[in-house]
Amino acid sequence: MEVFLDCLPCVLRQVLEASRMATGKNEQHAQIMEEALKILANYKDYQNSPDIVKDMHQVVKRLTGVSDPYKAVKERDIKAAQKAYPLLRRFVRDKQNSLYWVLKMAATGNIMDSAIYDNLNFVDSLQNELTKEFSICDLDMLQKTLSSATNILIIGDNAGETVFDRVLIEHLAGYAITYAVREEPVINDATLQDAYASGLGECAVIMTTGCLAPGAIMDQCSADFLRVFNKADIVISKGQGNYETLSECHRSIFFLLKAKCAVIADRLGVELNSYVCQYHSMQMV
Amino acid sequence: MEVFLDCLPCVLRQVLEASRMATGKNEQHAQIMEEALKILANYKDYQNSPDIVKDMHQVVKRLTGVSDPYKAVKERDIKAAQKAYPLLRRFVRDKQNSLYWVLKMAATGNIMDSAIYDNLNFVDSLQNELTKEFSICDLDMLQKTLSSATNILIIGDNAGETVFDRVLIEHLAGYAITYAVREEPVINDATLQDAYASGLGECAVIMTTGCLAPGAIMDQCSADFLRVFNKADIVISKGQGNYETLSECHRSIFFLLKAKCAVIADRLGVELNSYVCQYHSMQMV
Repeated sequence: MEVFLDCLPCVLRQVLEASRMATGKNEQHAQIMEEALKILANYKDYQNSPDIVKDMHQVVKRLTGVSDPYKAVKERDIKAAQKAYPLLRRFVRDKQNSLYWVLKMAATGNIMDSAIYDNLNFVDSLQNELTKEFSICDLDMLQKTLSSATNILIIGDNAGETVFDRVLIEHLAGYAITYAVREEPVINDATLQDAYASGLGECAVIMTTGCLAPGAIMDQCSADFLRVFNKADIVISKGQGNYETLSECHRSIFFLLKAKCAVIADRLGVELNSYVCQYHSMQMV
Repeated sequence: MEVFLDCLPCVLRQVLEASRMATGKNEQHAQIMEEALKILANYKDYQNSPDIVKDMHQVVKRLTGVSDPYKAVKERDIKAAQKAYPLLRRFVRDKQNSLYWVLKMAATGNIMDSAIYDNLNFVDSLQNELTKEFSICDLDMLQKTLSSATNILIIGDNAGETVFDRVLIEHLAGYAITYAVREEPVINDATLQDAYASGLGECAVIMTTGCLAPGAIMDQCSADFLRVFNKADIVISKGQGNYETLSECHRSIFFLLKAKCAVIADRLGVELNSYVCQYHSMQMV
């Protein structure tokens, strides 16, 4: 997916937030913004917005010396999600159409994205968010694919959301599941450490994509990841970042996300803040 | 007031909006954003954010050939405000502390700023906004100054808000009032044409500041305006733009505005969306 003009102010706002997460020094914030503006001036050289965010976040890390600016935010979000874990399991267990609701639950985990939602009172809004239905849900296609599948690759998104994904993975017990995370810390996206802290090591094989962006950009992913990606019977891609980087990919993918910005909502043909479980077929490109 | 880092993404978002107001051509939007990014790269050369917005808006006008991109928006806002004019007069007439409420009413006109508030259902929210009180109100100082004043300069802000200012001016009948507007169209700020369309020609002398920015930048204002500015017994400055350009000015000013962004609210020491009527004395710089 190309870089949209609307993304330019948004990624600039985001890098300012990241710089403040990393340091309280105003001079460094200004330095980072100057570097970020140089990156933005060349936005046409980038494949998509996560590709830009990647370079901006590298600037934040390089200029501040802080390797994981969102560490505290991620720990907070994982902790909050783990507190909600029993509630999430109960929510799914009590539903008749359990596959639908476990997917919806995993999509709801995407509200943990503190890169966009500041000071979210997660526990209070969780019940409300969980009961909202999907605006697009290609459940039939997923059920059909599951009937003949053996192995599943889930490409993760934010830390905290990882705990929701654990409930999804536990629901899919019997399949060999690989869970892929970012290669390095980038905004509040989950890393290996965050995945293990979320309990995913107990129910899935965890690996990194090899890509430094907050979205799996194919030609920046490792050979190891691409092997798993290409061989998986089912790929479930989580969040907007992965949607932006994989929506023109030459294999079938299920995109599970909340449309948090107008650009993505428009591209999907849904209202802002809608939940989506969309099947992308190999033939759609 | 300096350019804040938070303003950089905001003015970039605003210029994209302006470019879409001017034309539906995506190629031109991209061209404008590229020019805007070049301006942003030099943000340290600018005195304040309105100074940046000025240059960006000049790019929009130059590249699209549209001299007043917000023309339709401004006409809509003036029309909506004129429809509310009887209600505004009644609101002020029914109040005991009429100076307080006529100031509050004029500050409330600032919600017409469609550069920030899209698709505002103005009439519905008006009553609610009008009754909110000021978070800062230096009314005593204004009353004292009025008691010995003869002439007043009001530096206007948005189109539509101009109609609210008319009610303020009518309340101040007996004083010689000059109303200053922007030199040329810039975002949705009022021009001479907008001021006349709002009925201000019937109750005030209307002039321009000479400055092309959405805020009166002293060293860019005309000699004519500076003469009026320096000689006025009272200067009432409306909106955030004028606050940003005049808050370090060497004369006493009453700032009448709604704090619409976190940066300005923080500078004023009020909550976001607070209404303010703040006295700035000559000695405060």
